[in-house]
Amino acid sequence: MKYQLILASASPRRKKLLAQIGAEFEIIPATGEEIITSIEPEETVLELSGQKAREVAENILLSDTYFVQGKENALEQKQADKGVVVLGADTVVAFQGRILGKPTGREDASRMLKMLSGNTHSVFTGVTMIVLDNGKETKSLSFYEETKVTMYPMTEEQIQAYVNTGEPMDKAGAYGIQGKGAIYIEKIVGDYPNVVGLPLGAVYQKLEKSGIEIL
Amino acid sequence: MKYQLILASASPRRKKLLAQIGAEFEIIPATGEEIITSIEPEETVLELSGQKAREVAENILLSDTYFVQGKENALEQKQADKGVVVLGADTVVAFQGRILGKPTGREDASRMLKMLSGNTHSVFTGVTMIVLDNGKETKSLSFYEETKVTMYPMTEEQIQAYVNTGEPMDKAGAYGIQGKGAIYIEKIVGDYPNVVGLPLGAVYQKLEKSGIEIL
Repeated sequence: MKYQLILASASPRRKKLLAQIGAEFEIIPATGEEIITSIEPEETVLELSGQKAREVAENILLSDTYFVQGKENALEQKQADKGVVVLGADTVVAFQGRILGKPTGREDASRMLKMLSGNTHSVFTGVTMIVLDNGKETKSLSFYEETKVTMYPMTEEQIQAYVNTGEPMDKAGAYGIQGKGAIYIEKIVGDYPNVVGLPLGAVYQKLEKSGIEIL
Repeated sequence: MKYQLILASASPRRKKLLAQIGAEFEIIPATGEEIITSIEPEETVLELSGQKAREVAENILLSDTYFVQGKENALEQKQADKGVVVLGADTVVAFQGRILGKPTGREDASRMLKMLSGNTHSVFTGVTMIVLDNGKETKSLSFYEETKVTMYPMTEEQIQAYVNTGEPMDKAGAYGIQGKGAIYIEKIVGDYPNVVGLPLGAVYQKLEKSGIEIL
């Protein structure tokens, strides 16, 4: 049985990744406050992905319907009578025991890039998928994926030029591996889409193993 | 000094990768016959990237001009009076000592995917960059980059479904890591754009070290 996939995230990069594999999905961004109780990157991304997925899943369960953006931005109400998978995800960069989220401004971005330059850091994406069948939660899958990323050394000039492109500003760790940032990436060990924001392989394989079709 | 970059390849994926990093470039595909004298993947991609770059560079040197596709597909002649970098690249997949190029048809694609399923293979991209200054060749850079790719096991059904998408047909090793193929990729070790067709990081860093600006 094919499930309706709902992405509980407004991230344009996650949207693009799901589109890459030909998935049909609706976007219902979670809007709740993010509450972190851990300082470990693994637990942080699990917690935040869970909060996003749970908020959206609970709203659907309350009414057995969900709203999606229809034509001309009008909201369209849909019946959640078939199977639904709500997917929440969160990505952070971790380096020497510190979590790097999105930079607060240009100086923060420069500071992050200076830390990462010439070094190897980890990118963690946490994923929570809540499965709803006939208006009830029947399953919940939660995991994180780690990818190690090694960056070439960046000169002060290169860091400033890269910050000036604006690309670092909305990205964990202040770089975009899928954009201009690629020229500073020496190698990765692990899943590539995981660095962009969603581990496509693991998401698909885990759903497949549970008999849940999304493609 | 900023050089005019010329991509000696018609590959839409290499074009997209160069666009990703904000490079301005012209495309002049090499059309000559590909001649392979080695059975080693490293040497094969070096040889083929060299043939592509050399063919295009020599045509430019003959006339000090080059033709590019202008508006409405009209050919436009440009003066090669400033610095020019001609970039040729070739990508193959290697598994257990065998080179896998583009599949010859659906059956060949299935055969390749069956080999790669559940295993780790290598992707080699060879790059040759020929630098022209004032109508003379002043430098030539040549290297290859290897990335190891581990695929999840694919069932017979999954292989058929994937071949049916048509995606494998024009790709070395019969899969596209940047497309639907992503759901079968468990991990990579090395540079990601290298698997797509051009190691962006190494290309930029090697030109940078030689004082050749392309961005």
